[in-house]
Amino acid sequence: MNFCSHCGQPVRFAIPDMDNRPRYLCDHCGSIHYQNPRLITGTLPVAPDDRILLCRRAIEPRLGYWTLPAGFMENGETVVAGALRETLEEAQVKAHNPVLLSMISLPEFDQVHIFYRVDMPDFHYDVTPESSAVELFEIDALPWDQIAFRTVTATLEHFLAVRDQEVPAVLTGAIEPR
Amino acid sequence: MNFCSHCGQPVRFAIPDMDNRPRYLCDHCGSIHYQNPRLITGTLPVAPDDRILLCRRAIEPRLGYWTLPAGFMENGETVVAGALRETLEEAQVKAHNPVLLSMISLPEFDQVHIFYRVDMPDFHYDVTPESSAVELFEIDALPWDQIAFRTVTATLEHFLAVRDQEVPAVLTGAIEPR
Repeated sequence: MNFCSHCGQPVRFAIPDMDNRPRYLCDHCGSIHYQNPRLITGTLPVAPDDRILLCRRAIEPRLGYWTLPAGFMENGETVVAGALRETLEEAQVKAHNPVLLSMISLPEFDQVHIFYRVDMPDFHYDVTPESSAVELFEIDALPWDQIAFRTVTATLEHFLAVRDQEVPAVLTGAIEPR
Repeated sequence: MNFCSHCGQPVRFAIPDMDNRPRYLCDHCGSIHYQNPRLITGTLPVAPDDRILLCRRAIEPRLGYWTLPAGFMENGETVVAGALRETLEEAQVKAHNPVLLSMISLPEFDQVHIFYRVDMPDFHYDVTPESSAVELFEIDALPWDQIAFRTVTATLEHFLAVRDQEVPAVLTGAIEPR
């Protein structure tokens, strides 16, 4: 950030009065520009035959690797609405019955990743601009060495550990820098 | 947002190529300025005698009403680290043993509120610049008609419903516009 988004004048990076960490400050109009983590919301879709849906990424980062459908939560929506929207946008799946499965912080990237277990009503799914392939995997044939993100690996592992629970325990934690 | 925070030129609000909702766009440098919900993280502190700690707000909004210690998650921290930091900043409590209790979306305000049940190691707590009073309440004497925010009311109600569970069920949901 170089300029104030409100008045267009240059900003400086300093600790405001009554605060304890630096922010981008505009001396011209007095705006304080806070920057906060962003939330990634997604799903682990389970097909009627218990196979798990994964998407092969058609875009960077991690192009060509497998992931769960997920993306940035948007203003004006709920976490779960964002998860279901991303599932439709990335895999053409109209999922239902969402149950919270994991919430993992990535302090290195200023992100929090949240995943819900969801049910697929049928076997309908399709490729999309963001997914070059969409496939159902047996749980003993998941492509563990081709998973795009560590939060996806952790969420898949947690799902397998708790999938016999009607209300699954929620995985919480963080992925620290490598 | 009126000006590009990268180059200082005016922005326009329009749907970018390959997107489906309007963003602030800079035609001068090509920046797309995404805006996303912010995360509020906090705790429900339980004292060694099972009383619950609440803070009386010394600042707007809802000045004078009671709340759980909570605040905006900061870049570079985890959700739980932010919750513990806010508990120290707002109530001078060094809490431990955090367990996820609730995650509630507020689409009207572009926020998600997350609370952890935490244990207080002793009876130490104090007022702070953000809290004009900090008090422990018996569970049958909570000031229900003086609670600052609906997510706090919902989290307190949920805590009472699940407090006999070793790993409490997590409240998920949304608070829609009044």
